[in-house]
Amino acid sequence: MAEQKIPYKIYLEENEMPKAWYNVRSDMKKKPAPLLNPGTGKPMTAEELEHVFCKELVEQELNNDDRYIEIPTEIRDFYKMYRPSPLVRAYCLEKKLGTPAKIYYKFEGNNTSGSHKLNSAIAQAYYAKKQGLKGVTTETGAGQWGTALSMACAYLGLDCKVFMVKCSYEQKPFRREVMRTYGASVTPSPSMETEIGKKILAEYPGTNGSLGCAISEAVETATKLDGYRYVLGSVLNQVVLHQSVIGLETKTALEKYGIKPDVIIGCAGGGSNLGGLISPFMGEKLRGEADYHFIAVEPASCPSLTRGKYAYDFCDTGEVCPLLKMYTLGSQFIPSPSHAGGLRYHGMSSILSELYDEGLMEARSVTQTDVFKAAEYFARVEGILPAPESSHAIKVAIDEAIKCRETGEEKTIVFGLTGTGYFDMVAYGQYNDNKMSDTIPTDEDIAASLAKLPKVNG
Amino acid sequence: MAEQKIPYKIYLEENEMPKAWYNVRSDMKKKPAPLLNPGTGKPMTAEELEHVFCKELVEQELNNDDRYIEIPTEIRDFYKMYRPSPLVRAYCLEKKLGTPAKIYYKFEGNNTSGSHKLNSAIAQAYYAKKQGLKGVTTETGAGQWGTALSMACAYLGLDCKVFMVKCSYEQKPFRREVMRTYGASVTPSPSMETEIGKKILAEYPGTNGSLGCAISEAVETATKLDGYRYVLGSVLNQVVLHQSVIGLETKTALEKYGIKPDVIIGCAGGGSNLGGLISPFMGEKLRGEADYHFIAVEPASCPSLTRGKYAYDFCDTGEVCPLLKMYTLGSQFIPSPSHAGGLRYHGMSSILSELYDEGLMEARSVTQTDVFKAAEYFARVEGILPAPESSHAIKVAIDEAIKCRETGEEKTIVFGLTGTGYFDMVAYGQYNDNKMSDTIPTDEDIAASLAKLPKVNG
Repeated sequence: MAEQKIPYKIYLEENEMPKAWYNVRSDMKKKPAPLLNPGTGKPMTAEELEHVFCKELVEQELNNDDRYIEIPTEIRDFYKMYRPSPLVRAYCLEKKLGTPAKIYYKFEGNNTSGSHKLNSAIAQAYYAKKQGLKGVTTETGAGQWGTALSMACAYLGLDCKVFMVKCSYEQKPFRREVMRTYGASVTPSPSMETEIGKKILAEYPGTNGSLGCAISEAVETATKLDGYRYVLGSVLNQVVLHQSVIGLETKTALEKYGIKPDVIIGCAGGGSNLGGLISPFMGEKLRGEADYHFIAVEPASCPSLTRGKYAYDFCDTGEVCPLLKMYTLGSQFIPSPSHAGGLRYHGMSSILSELYDEGLMEARSVTQTDVFKAAEYFARVEGILPAPESSHAIKVAIDEAIKCRETGEEKTIVFGLTGTGYFDMVAYGQYNDNKMSDTIPTDEDIAASLAKLPKVNG
Repeated sequence: MAEQKIPYKIYLEENEMPKAWYNVRSDMKKKPAPLLNPGTGKPMTAEELEHVFCKELVEQELNNDDRYIEIPTEIRDFYKMYRPSPLVRAYCLEKKLGTPAKIYYKFEGNNTSGSHKLNSAIAQAYYAKKQGLKGVTTETGAGQWGTALSMACAYLGLDCKVFMVKCSYEQKPFRREVMRTYGASVTPSPSMETEIGKKILAEYPGTNGSLGCAISEAVETATKLDGYRYVLGSVLNQVVLHQSVIGLETKTALEKYGIKPDVIIGCAGGGSNLGGLISPFMGEKLRGEADYHFIAVEPASCPSLTRGKYAYDFCDTGEVCPLLKMYTLGSQFIPSPSHAGGLRYHGMSSILSELYDEGLMEARSVTQTDVFKAAEYFARVEGILPAPESSHAIKVAIDEAIKCRETGEEKTIVFGLTGTGYFDMVAYGQYNDNKMSDTIPTDEDIAASLAKLPKVNG
């Protein structure tokens, strides 16, 4: 291995880092469906959205036309603290698998938030600061997004109020402490601080909370407090836009060495990582300049793309947010316990949903135990302990590499390694002790949940 | 900040990475004192040492002459998976402090072990494998060394038996799970698996264990089992040698941009990080080619350099290991609870002890609460949540930068950021809740412990 021309890790120079985000919507012939006002059933106007979101972010959310949107210098400076992230050639994994495939992964875990979430957190916090706001509110489940937002807010001197799903608040005290170290206030949800929290607590006194409820509390708080707005870490178009920095860096790094990927794989929860990773490659495909095989990997316990319906639905269980057209299992769908908290979302980014619906990308679902098996294998060979979410992509990348071993094809496989599993050791412990199981929703479960889709679908 | 010539992070190219470790002993006029056999009081021979340590590592341990020792290709390949580590220009910290000083830190935390320990773990595991051994044994306190060794052994297919101090085993279950994920067996110490463990448990049934006891159990296991040797993560000459990769990379990175440091700062527990970071710079100083101000930072709760004695002492409380001449608080010294587990060692590397004794480096001790204050400040400004150990260096780097603000000096400060604090959130939580306190040993405590130094000191 001593004479490899391609290094183990490809780092871009600072001046090769993207100066603009790429907006994949600009190259989509059929644009993602607009957000609808749940009351009127009509498209949300910018003015309506600005009650909840920052002005400039609303512009980005609604901008289907501009191919590139400049990254402000302040955000680029922040990116320089933890980016460029390495594009790693998985030499050891290839050797261990005995595959002729060439495997690369874009590793987004080398920052304290432990994931790619920081890419959008700093952007959203920056625009909030620029607008002169005092602070932002958000929800967090697994805690990666809350941590990322806390870091961004600490850097900019912005107040940060995080509603953390109560069961995570109690089961993941360390995530909570990281956020507190960054100066965020962390409230277990449901709480007595909001009307919706009080209502839910009165109705279900012993509830452990849910992401949907935490979203509703964060939105209510943002709209009630002067100088606050709500921010969201995935699903939205603006988030996919910010995360395009992942794909842009990946593309530049590959091009430096004249590498053309065949297969591009990412895990998919709300779609922010996958959307960001594939955006510039998808752009080429949409413009007919190149072809790639994209694979979205989701948990079998929460299979929105593979078993959901493409329809308008609420983003949250509280049903206070705008309606989004997406592949969904229904906003009332409750996924069985799975340790990939970041993938336990009933819906999917509108952009990815539309691309999937047009047949431009494949989707696969994988079970939790298979994912942890792949995670352990990868950790031992490549030295990085991956997040359960990211390990969904690892599982399918290994599957594809094994296929190449069988067919002899020398495919180039690129996958997104979104983060590290340092705060997921309870799950790894269960796997180590053979106490992990798989629960997959029945067709009846999904049908029951889909029966409650909003009327606007007709 | 847009036009900075020096990037936020300096990464070396793969071909600029060190091909040989630098052995600082070769440039020391007065060599570190030899290891002594505790029974005979005579220098340990290679043959005696080979009962406990791998052959090639014994050679490195005793090698005071060769300036460079080649890094085998296999180790260099492993290094390429997580190295070069970035040398970061702390632009944000400088700006926030308003200092004319230029601050750089060498960040060793971007790997799953979370610290620089992996640099020596892979080397020690490699020589064990090369010698045809089945496995290695070791002890771990805070868990960073045990994790690093587990990773190295998983990569090489070597068995790894870790004795983990019982209180850490129980208080840090996540560290334990990381090691298990890498296939290591982790035994709480004291255990019923060794004679010394049984003896201690019979004597003190409720004991929580200590590092000294865990060392004794690991050594006993290595000598009892066929095909096993014992490995140690700090203090030894060989470890400082392997860790010289930190200093060599730092020096190359600085030279690429024509930067000459004035002050070089590192935290010091057993001395592996500090020794590795300063080695090549100290070499220049010893050869009269350059001058640098070196600062070792230790916890006020365990101040071996600043308040200890330069004498022969045991490495372990069980007193089964060879005697080492070092700055020590006495092998029976029990530091008050401190969250920087990696710095709670009664002694100090013989190399650093000798250099310090000759006045070639300064030492300072700092209190825990001041360290966490600096850690929090750094995390919010530079985005990295540091390990408590590393934060000792941060504290003094900030102190030095503030001095520059007062004097107007434009000094270049380099410090070692050895690792991340992701597994130290209990300590951060105590700090966040204002429940952290400082305990500093009295002169009587230290005198009582030093009174028990071995007779060989005369």
